Amino acid sequence: MDVDVSELQKNKIEEQYSVLTSNVTSVVEKAELKRKIKDSVINNKPLNVKLGLDPSAPDIHLGHLVVLKKLKQFQQFGHKIHLVIGDFTGMIGDPTGKSESRVQLSKEEVEKNARTYVEQFGRILDMRNVEVHYNSSWLEKLNIKNLIDLLSTTTVARMLERNDFTKRFNNQTPIYLHEFLYPLFQGYDSVALHSDVELGGNDQQYNLLVGRRLQDHFDQSKQVVMTMPLLVGLDGKMKMSKSKHNYIGITEKPDIIFGKIMSIPDIQMLEYYKSISTFSDKEIDVIEKKMNSNLINPKDVKVMLAKDIIKQLYNQKSADSAEQEFNNVFKKGQVPNQIPNFAWNGDSEVSISTLFTTTSLLPSKGAAMRMLKNGGLRINSKKLKEGDSKVTVSDGMIIQVGKRKFLRIKY
Amino acid sequence: MDVDVSELQKNKIEEQYSVLTSNVTSVVEKAELKRKIKDSVINNKPLNVKLGLDPSAPDIHLGHLVVLKKLKQFQQFGHKIHLVIGDFTGMIGDPTGKSESRVQLSKEEVEKNARTYVEQFGRILDMRNVEVHYNSSWLEKLNIKNLIDLLSTTTVARMLERNDFTKRFNNQTPIYLHEFLYPLFQGYDSVALHSDVELGGNDQQYNLLVGRRLQDHFDQSKQVVMTMPLLVGLDGKMKMSKSKHNYIGITEKPDIIFGKIMSIPDIQMLEYYKSISTFSDKEIDVIEKKMNSNLINPKDVKVMLAKDIIKQLYNQKSADSAEQEFNNVFKKGQVPNQIPNFAWNGDSEVSISTLFTTTSLLPSKGAAMRMLKNGGLRINSKKLKEGDSKVTVSDGMIIQVGKRKFLRIKY
Repeated sequence: MDVDVSELQKNKIEEQYSVLTSNVTSVVEKAELKRKIKDSVINNKPLNVKLGLDPSAPDIHLGHLVVLKKLKQFQQFGHKIHLVIGDFTGMIGDPTGKSESRVQLSKEEVEKNARTYVEQFGRILDMRNVEVHYNSSWLEKLNIKNLIDLLSTTTVARMLERNDFTKRFNNQTPIYLHEFLYPLFQGYDSVALHSDVELGGNDQQYNLLVGRRLQDHFDQSKQVVMTMPLLVGLDGKMKMSKSKHNYIGITEKPDIIFGKIMSIPDIQMLEYYKSISTFSDKEIDVIEKKMNSNLINPKDVKVMLAKDIIKQLYNQKSADSAEQEFNNVFKKGQVPNQIPNFAWNGDSEVSISTLFTTTSLLPSKGAAMRMLKNGGLRINSKKLKEGDSKVTVSDGMIIQVGKRKFLRIKY
Repeated sequence: MDVDVSELQKNKIEEQYSVLTSNVTSVVEKAELKRKIKDSVINNKPLNVKLGLDPSAPDIHLGHLVVLKKLKQFQQFGHKIHLVIGDFTGMIGDPTGKSESRVQLSKEEVEKNARTYVEQFGRILDMRNVEVHYNSSWLEKLNIKNLIDLLSTTTVARMLERNDFTKRFNNQTPIYLHEFLYPLFQGYDSVALHSDVELGGNDQQYNLLVGRRLQDHFDQSKQVVMTMPLLVGLDGKMKMSKSKHNYIGITEKPDIIFGKIMSIPDIQMLEYYKSISTFSDKEIDVIEKKMNSNLINPKDVKVMLAKDIIKQLYNQKSADSAEQEFNNVFKKGQVPNQIPNFAWNGDSEVSISTLFTTTSLLPSKGAAMRMLKNGGLRINSKKLKEGDSKVTVSDGMIIQVGKRKFLRIKY
């Protein structure tokens, strides 16, 4: 059935479609997305856009920014954002006790973690237009017949197609039957919400597609599944993740974020631009061309990126002072404004190695000796020389390893 | 902990153990059974003996007699028999609609089928000492957390060890996830009943062992699993089964049972003796030796078996008259006492082939002609000869094909 669509509406539909499908890994199915956008524009009815969240790991890093920026685009087009806190499985835990990530959480812990999400997401999204759901509110109501019905929608073979299950099955690592329920629960969340679009990382595609299958089973219009690229971490190799210690937390201080962005391998930079900056595709194209023609220094490109990200998470002022601070410390060798204190309890006269190991700036006497030899140790910005041995400890003394590790001695 | 056991008690324990472990395919574990019998004798506490029944197929045949006789032994030793009607899954049916045997049954149908079981089992067991349970009464109470707990007791690989699942998985025939629930439900029945012993055919061992696993999970003493041999059907090849048309129903008339037993291949006879007769192992040994030395005619051995089975299902008198009847018909060529009527609506003068095909005694004119040629057709015990063509139909006329198919014409 074709409806008369005005030129203005046509433009709106095209704009939404073009923005929303930019910088995504996959859309299942694009035609469905276009139809949903069209229906939304014509009927002036926002789409339900879903993001599922694991309540056990509330610390958000720049990897999450990829999906948050996409949610923000949906929000800016007037669509409704639904965050689903997966508290149901969290509150059950793992009955086999085999999975550390499925430790049973109390209601209080779940709610505390959910608040953390909301606070951290609030740096990007307008939270007044975001609905937060706990999936226990519908999953707890399922009875045994509903559950049999849910299970009957899927075959063993299809479930084992999921990457991690395939690997474990082939390696004869036990897969407990209840683990098959979790993708189904996640899919059922889409049914409960009448979700139109679900977002996730591209490692989540299997789970998100379960939602489509279940919505179809429940005679609902199937959600569009959009997966986002996974941001590579600071190591330039692995997916950014808290457990891999290669991440930039979105609540980290501007100075820290600035420094960490500056440490990204050059080769990853354009990916970061595309995934988490506010630069348009055109602007990124220009930057890329300039870099390739050596018309711009990659370091300056990184500075722009770092400031852009800090501006998103904080504001322009924080971005400017982070840059200033970085220049002070790394370019001019100045001491940063804020450095941690260390309360000294030891003797007032100690060896250099004792000073740097007692304060944990260096792990061992050997490491301290090597650093000294390489000229990497300073006291009050003055480089220590090989041959120096004893130091007189004084209150306010600033000790330094390399370019970035500082301590102020309190004595 | 050893308890003082009197000589009398020791004898009782040994007798029970010896009788109950006779003619079974397997016992898991024998030592546990002995311990359970000992506890039962010492504390004068009956064991809970479980048999699960599928409410969709209530017709009982001699194959079931194997397990019924074992139940009767338990009953005679004072133990408690629990029949579990698996109505829960029956009332749910198969959500995928893929399995014909899982058609959804109404509460009325389930109860009707359960009554049929009780009536038919009453021919063997003293039903005053049998408890009938519907597993919906506990399974319906399970909530979603209980279910996750149940599922967590088993791995995918372990579930796929079940014969039929292995085959289907290897053949890429879909296995729907809810199918994994059924063995778990069956196992949970044992938990709900605090079952001490569960009986079943030897094709049921996988399912019965699930009960042990679940009881262990719920900190109960594990049930002993006893499997019985599967009786081969009248064809001498396949397991006796209604769907294979090779069965003897336990409610069939004595004459029919007698005839069917007489048709068993000689080679199967001892198996029938061991599985479903009341003859002791010693008596069966004697019979076997006599047969092997040609001191007894296998036909007479079959007659003894047929009469023994009819006596179990009916009484001595029925056994005697079935034998008498068999002798009349098959040995002396007499007409049996009871033969079905056929109300004739056709012409009074018809061809032989019309007579025998209209009454459905024979499938086609060609078959009638061949039977006539072979001397297999009779009217009022008089053999029809090739060349005979027309017959005058009269009321009370008995028509006969071969030795066993009779009809009385009502005209």
